Amino acid sequence: MQHSNIKKWSAEFIGTFWLTFGGCGSAVLAAAFPQLGIGFTGVALAFGLTVLTGAYALGPISGGHFNPAVSVGLWVGGRFRAAQLPGYIIAQVLGAIAAAGLLYVIATGKPGADIGGFATNGYGAHSPGGFDLTAALVTEVVLTAIFLIVILGATARHAAAGFGGMAIGLCLTLIHLISIPVTNTSVNPARSTGPALFGPAYAMSELWLFWVAPIAGAVLGALIYNLLLKED
Amino acid sequence: MQHSNIKKWSAEFIGTFWLTFGGCGSAVLAAAFPQLGIGFTGVALAFGLTVLTGAYALGPISGGHFNPAVSVGLWVGGRFRAAQLPGYIIAQVLGAIAAAGLLYVIATGKPGADIGGFATNGYGAHSPGGFDLTAALVTEVVLTAIFLIVILGATARHAAAGFGGMAIGLCLTLIHLISIPVTNTSVNPARSTGPALFGPAYAMSELWLFWVAPIAGAVLGALIYNLLLKED
Amino acid sequence: MQHSNIKKWSAEFIGTFWLTFGGCGSAVLAAAFPQLGIGFTGVALAFGLTVLTGAYALGPISGGHFNPAVSVGLWVGGRFRAAQLPGYIIAQVLGAIAAAGLLYVIATGKPGADIGGFATNGYGAHSPGGFDLTAALVTEVVLTAIFLIVILGATARHAAAGFGGMAIGLCLTLIHLISIPVTNTSVNPARSTGPALFGPAYAMSELWLFWVAPIAGAVLGALIYNLLLKED
Amino acid sequence: MQHSNIKKWSAEFIGTFWLTFGGCGSAVLAAAFPQLGIGFTGVALAFGLTVLTGAYALGPISGGHFNPAVSVGLWVGGRFRAAQLPGYIIAQVLGAIAAAGLLYVIATGKPGADIGGFATNGYGAHSPGGFDLTAALVTEVVLTAIFLIVILGATARHAAAGFGGMAIGLCLTLIHLISIPVTNTSVNPARSTGPALFGPAYAMSELWLFWVAPIAGAVLGALIYNLLLKED
Repeated sequence: MQHSNIKKWSAEFIGTFWLTFGGCGSAVLAAAFPQLGIGFTGVALAFGLTVLTGAYALGPISGGHFNPAVSVGLWVGGRFRAAQLPGYIIAQVLGAIAAAGLLYVIATGKPGADIGGFATNGYGAHSPGGFDLTAALVTEVVLTAIFLIVILGATARHAAAGFGGMAIGLCLTLIHLISIPVTNTSVNPARSTGPALFGPAYAMSELWLFWVAPIAGAVLGALIYNLLLKED
Repeated sequence: MQHSNIKKWSAEFIGTFWLTFGGCGSAVLAAAFPQLGIGFTGVALAFGLTVLTGAYALGPISGGHFNPAVSVGLWVGGRFRAAQLPGYIIAQVLGAIAAAGLLYVIATGKPGADIGGFATNGYGAHSPGGFDLTAALVTEVVLTAIFLIVILGATARHAAAGFGGMAIGLCLTLIHLISIPVTNTSVNPARSTGPALFGPAYAMSELWLFWVAPIAGAVLGALIYNLLLKED
Repeated sequence: MQHSNIKKWSAEFIGTFWLTFGGCGSAVLAAAFPQLGIGFTGVALAFGLTVLTGAYALGPISGGHFNPAVSVGLWVGGRFRAAQLPGYIIAQVLGAIAAAGLLYVIATGKPGADIGGFATNGYGAHSPGGFDLTAALVTEVVLTAIFLIVILGATARHAAAGFGGMAIGLCLTLIHLISIPVTNTSVNPARSTGPALFGPAYAMSELWLFWVAPIAGAVLGALIYNLLLKED
Repeated sequence: MQHSNIKKWSAEFIGTFWLTFGGCGSAVLAAAFPQLGIGFTGVALAFGLTVLTGAYALGPISGGHFNPAVSVGLWVGGRFRAAQLPGYIIAQVLGAIAAAGLLYVIATGKPGADIGGFATNGYGAHSPGGFDLTAALVTEVVLTAIFLIVILGATARHAAAGFGGMAIGLCLTLIHLISIPVTNTSVNPARSTGPALFGPAYAMSELWLFWVAPIAGAVLGALIYNLLLKED
């Protein structure tokens, strides 16, 4: 079936809202709770489950990108039309901003609230583990490249039907299990943009990296897939 | 196939019993065990797996709501008949009460037992992280709204067959990963009612929120789904 | 297709070996590792994944019981022939004993090794959280009853094809998330018997409970399923 | 469909790169992060998800071995041609080396970086829990044997279609939940070889065990499967 653009944009807005609200929300609200907090494992699970749930619920409508780098990578991979890119990316960024704003309201809704880094992405002094710009760049490029390979492979014609949403969602969990200490994990420019608007000032000045690296990685992943893996 | 009302009510009673016994049981018995306790991550996983297992085992019988807010949301979304609401909601609340009673027997079955908050939901002074009424209200409304969007989307005609139970169960895990610090997570009036009857006195006086907010959120989610996402 | 008894018994031996070696092995070797240990959450995940993996790999051969209480419950539920019970239960118990023996060899393969409780089940003074006999009995009966309802429901004719192994495996994870503090979680007489032979002496004297309660619970669950839930 | 050797080798290179980069990366970068680190549970999840995601994305191309022991075991089990072994194993080892090299670049990209054991495998003094050579050998043989039984069973003709990738990936998670304290978990000679080239010197001198034991275990598992479990 074919869905209208309004439905597709709504699905991308809601899905990226969910990715940002759920992933960053778990990080801001629950990761460092004394004794019982969910830590990086819980945050990684949360990010992945936003995509897993969004993929099964909204994927049939919009394809379930929820990420400008994914939309660009799918275009390079021949699975998405360039004309659709602007509408998708605008919907994704707006969804992420709405999520970050709402999360800000909740996170500040307690006496003595301290939003800390507000789940923003960063490098160098603002990398959770102090990793430098090069390490951050390499990490984001490589992980987004493999993310696209998994997306393209798990939704190819020969792939097991229905399992794509599970594989792709859990791939995002895996990506976070590896890289939260390096950049707080982006691989998604929209997810990085929302919190940067409400978080500490340095986040905006480092935001460029989390547009450049994920998109470069997504293009790289799509090219590798098409060149080396794609079925004839 | 069509099942009798008795079977449907039995399935909803057992499923909501399982949700409350499993989710609240893991919180009361295992979350804060010294050194080895499961923390909020384990509790989040437990709540989600009650729904995942219940959905596959009982979903074909009753639809697998296990939650008055879900039943109301599915009615608003056009997937459930109003005439069925009273029977379902009564079965759900009774199941949750039975679970909380049984959990009380187990939790007090040790010398010097202290049931603490008994997995009740609360806000302000009774929010695990001290979040105020507004934060609690917003959190419960938003999360239940998205829960309904995931439920309606993942069980739509165009959705991947069979994966709905996984997506919906893991969505409840995700919801808990975000919001246990805010309200101890309800999104389910039955789950809130059971423990409130056996837990500390304040739980009953704050219970209204955990009927109002999840049901409002479920209605909101169903309206958003029908307006913006539903296939023609 | 029909498999020979030798293949069925081999599958049950290997599957119960895997359940005991993997579940108890994670508990003995990894749960309390300093700083990085997997805790009860990791042990719960391990037990569940033994059944999930065993169900997909061996289920088509033997049905994937790996548990005398499950075999009895499936017989009561009309899904398994009484004549097969002795062979299955013997294979299961032998598999669990072999696993516990091998685990003993590994666990003692280090200087100053201390096997501690060796993942045995117990109550009262030997309950991890100090829960008394009544709490232990109620917990094991209720959890095994629901385990059987999930097994019978998720493998019924109307259930989503293929998802049974996932639901049943993750149900065992959920059961452990709730009840490790109470009895160290059995719901499986074979799993309890293996470690009891190699662990501290008290384990043998409390082993009766972990035959009686899981089997009683399994019978109860099967009766509830047949009476209230079974499709006509 | 039939894929060219170049595509198969590319898929094995990328898949083993992902297994090593993701699994070892999570261990090196995130496991021991102060307060919020993912611990052995997170590392176990990461290793398993590399295989789960690789299986759905790349499995249709190369079969998704990502492990020389698996390739050998599948050959013994009659599912893979001997002529393909050299190409697959070379691609796997090269992928693991590339992953370890890239991980080394990232892990040293911070002031005062200390790569520690760099996720290498070891026994005796270099076993995380101090387990001796015998314990290490037994553990690796048994776990690889069962890994092969799960792989052969979950991808057999009678197995539930599509679920193999999930069962096999989560089996690797389970294997890690059990055995990280013993050998840091190999069951995969390629995964052991990559980090050994960049890690502490002792890793190369103990590497032999992580070729011998996983391959011996894989052969054992395949023989058990063919002898006792294989359908006629």
